[in-house]
Amino acid sequence: MQDKIILGIDPGTNIMGYGIIHIQGKKMSLVTLGVIKLNKLTNHADKLLRIQKKVDALIQEYKPDEMAIEAPFFGKNVQSMLKLGRAQGVAIGAALNRNLPFEEYSPRKIKQAITGNGNASKEQVASMLMNLLNFKEEPEYMDSTDGLAVAVCHHFQKGVGEHNKSKSGSWKAFIANNPDRKKN
Amino acid sequence: MQDKIILGIDPGTNIMGYGIIHIQGKKMSLVTLGVIKLNKLTNHADKLLRIQKKVDALIQEYKPDEMAIEAPFFGKNVQSMLKLGRAQGVAIGAALNRNLPFEEYSPRKIKQAITGNGNASKEQVASMLMNLLNFKEEPEYMDSTDGLAVAVCHHFQKGVGEHNKSKSGSWKAFIANNPDRKKN
Repeated sequence: MQDKIILGIDPGTNIMGYGIIHIQGKKMSLVTLGVIKLNKLTNHADKLLRIQKKVDALIQEYKPDEMAIEAPFFGKNVQSMLKLGRAQGVAIGAALNRNLPFEEYSPRKIKQAITGNGNASKEQVASMLMNLLNFKEEPEYMDSTDGLAVAVCHHFQKGVGEHNKSKSGSWKAFIANNPDRKKN
Repeated sequence: MQDKIILGIDPGTNIMGYGIIHIQGKKMSLVTLGVIKLNKLTNHADKLLRIQKKVDALIQEYKPDEMAIEAPFFGKNVQSMLKLGRAQGVAIGAALNRNLPFEEYSPRKIKQAITGNGNASKEQVASMLMNLLNFKEEPEYMDSTDGLAVAVCHHFQKGVGEHNKSKSGSWKAFIANNPDRKKN
């Protein structure tokens, strides 16, 4: 039976969101979600240090088997992309340092996987996640559900079991492979 | 007496250069320099893994006290800056993970510090470094001297001792503070 923990991260230079899910067979459950606040740190180096320490702490505490990150490939300007790349790089480095494999997904792919619509709003993604993972209270920061979304997307992409691995990994494919989950 | 080891890194997505220097009092000596070749790795994730492992290995082997990286702030396009940012982030993360403080310097500042000219060529920088650190053979890859340059720049910036800390940190200031070194 499949049994693994997935850490999802939405790296940002102001707030970094994360979500952790536990996959047991066909059951997917929420372990935790939250944010790493960086906006009060004015020094870029301090932000990177905070990311490194916190991601490493999450890995040590929850012992995930895999990490997935949300990776936008286009941004406003080269300066902001360099900073974003660094934030991503530090988070990825924390995973690599603990021998954790990582994969990345575009925001569009994540939205597509969770809601079936690549242009879905953050609210639609959050609402679908609350439904999928049975949590009732909307988190204070949407960034945490963004982190959670990439973890769930990664799980859908990988399929819910080796025997019925889905190539498309979409929400539709997940529903098709898991008709019982629709009842939740 | 000041006694510390500085690791300098020039992060690139094809070749990453590094140089390590040892500062003992007013004496600065070369420990090692080299490159991490990434150009044969087609997968971006593999490149990041190689960077993480190699930078961590350098830190474990040479036990530097500080790390300095060359950080260009402008690039061709957002895509390449994101990749560069990630490469930098993974290298920085490897340092942070071992509690190594890091500082960054622009290419212009590094050239200025080493040669007195912010627009100096790579060859001029390499030649000055060979002179400063008494090595005769030009390295196969200029990227390694770029890594070494940032380590030396960091040392000059910090001053060669608390008592005569140089604000400008330039080569001129270094000469002024270390008249005996000019004889080399």
